[in-house]
Amino acid sequence: MENIFDDSYFMKKALQEAEIAFEKGEIPVGAVIVVDNRIIARAHNLTETLNDVTAHAEMQAITAAANFLGGKYLKNCTLYVTLEPCQMCAGALYWSQISKVIYGATDTQRGCGVMGTQMHPKTEIKGGVLHEEAASLMKRFFIEKRNLN
Amino acid sequence: MENIFDDSYFMKKALQEAEIAFEKGEIPVGAVIVVDNRIIARAHNLTETLNDVTAHAEMQAITAAANFLGGKYLKNCTLYVTLEPCQMCAGALYWSQISKVIYGATDTQRGCGVMGTQMHPKTEIKGGVLHEEAASLMKRFFIEKRNLN
Repeated sequence: MENIFDDSYFMKKALQEAEIAFEKGEIPVGAVIVVDNRIIARAHNLTETLNDVTAHAEMQAITAAANFLGGKYLKNCTLYVTLEPCQMCAGALYWSQISKVIYGATDTQRGCGVMGTQMHPKTEIKGGVLHEEAASLMKRFFIEKRNLN
Repeated sequence: MENIFDDSYFMKKALQEAEIAFEKGEIPVGAVIVVDNRIIARAHNLTETLNDVTAHAEMQAITAAANFLGGKYLKNCTLYVTLEPCQMCAGALYWSQISKVIYGATDTQRGCGVMGTQMHPKTEIKGGVLHEEAASLMKRFFIEKRNLN
């Protein structure tokens, strides 16, 4: 039997979160955290709604997952996020010692890659999963925003 | 008349927060955010209490200051923090566009300097204010912790 729980499956769940952010007028980034094929945290960007630069999808997902697990380390967890994490989120992921970070679209301006943020040695990071869907959602958001202003 | 509101004055307030963290068994780091010589946010590390790697003093202070100001940008604000910010906190400070970051002790292992985290071009960063007090509090914490284990 085919395993339906592949990276695309969970990235689609993260994209659903990104769409919720879009509807709220937030830069559309979504994230889920998974353990043993089970989603233990879902979050989307809320920086505008909360007036808080720290309210990125990943930050909220890290807090929610730790709360679910009852411990602050996210060993054996995988984060799926639609956009490459920034310095702040990569720094938080560093402290969490998360096992895997899978992202969709690359952030060529402020992503942890171009900014040179260090990941924890225990963390594997991979980009490009459903990156076209994630990038096209972002593009649509900024086109609509420009047309409204 | 001498201006009592110098960097040492506000760093002492941050050190008071660090002492509260110490009493709670948290790594003793404290922070305050100041606008026009007025403290608008006080916070201390709560990572153990909240089981959350994102609960650094600076992160909570950024959220509290934005809440006080009613906006997410911390222009014209100064953060005083007893220990050099990590990648996560420096990344959050980047997004906040804060005017100044003044820290006490240098973190030679995980500080934003050694980790190469990029600050916002509008942000001035300076270390070494009451660094001996901050470093000695940290040292005392780790000695006590070692003796308890």
